Amino acid sequence: MQSTKLYGLHIESYPMQHSSFSAMQCPIALSLERVGEWWSIMILRDAFLGLTRFDQFRKSLGIAPNILSRRLRGLVNTGLLAKSRYSDHPPRDEYLLTELGRDFRPVLLALLAWGERHFVSDEPAAVERTTVRPTRRNTEITRNQP
Amino acid sequence: MQSTKLYGLHIESYPMQHSSFSAMQCPIALSLERVGEWWSIMILRDAFLGLTRFDQFRKSLGIAPNILSRRLRGLVNTGLLAKSRYSDHPPRDEYLLTELGRDFRPVLLALLAWGERHFVSDEPAAVERTTVRPTRRNTEITRNQP
Repeated sequence: MQSTKLYGLHIESYPMQHSSFSAMQCPIALSLERVGEWWSIMILRDAFLGLTRFDQFRKSLGIAPNILSRRLRGLVNTGLLAKSRYSDHPPRDEYLLTELGRDFRPVLLALLAWGERHFVSDEPAAVERTTVRPTRRNTEITRNQP
Repeated sequence: MQSTKLYGLHIESYPMQHSSFSAMQCPIALSLERVGEWWSIMILRDAFLGLTRFDQFRKSLGIAPNILSRRLRGLVNTGLLAKSRYSDHPPRDEYLLTELGRDFRPVLLALLAWGERHFVSDEPAAVERTTVRPTRRNTEITRNQP
């Protein structure tokens, strides 16, 4: 069984009989509570790419302003982004990765690597949508973690 | 700018002007299309813990049957789980990780480690909900990747 490989010694510590994620002590559940949403992860990706402003995120993701607004607020509330005023006239804020947010980078890199291995073909236009077996390719991901 | 650290040499390859994720070549976006949903990731976690049957997932996650049903179907359709008949009378299926699904493990481990560092306190009952600065602790995660 692969259970012990995933959780190691911690497996006994995270019982899963709870019916609410918030009651779970499982670190994966606790993490997903903060960023368990597609758009939030894409916003974090863009933040790592250097984007900081509402309009930059909006243009990059093609996301509806009200959804973007809600997601940014969520990421600020959970402490992954911090809001910082960069202009008083007109009032404008930018969104910067906190230490907690920057520390999310290994998750993005793992997603990036998984996507690279399975869903990105050498031809930019032809994505293998239904590949089950991995097509192991060399990736050029920079993995210089702190 | 932290962009080059995340995407390395690939940064030029994934333009982000698209307004739909499905049009994006970014491996993170392509990955999130498959598992960009909270419950799906929790189901995968449970699959790694050895769970295979509908009732096991339902009890473990406290998830509504119709949602679980939809998520399992989604994970089968995207090739992360495979359905396998284990009983004909009554007809019963179980859900097994495919190679693509097993290869998702590093993402779960990265989430696990991030959650461990930030949201799991030594006291099981007291979760640090608003921590921004990491409280670096030694983790005991088994990282024997293939």
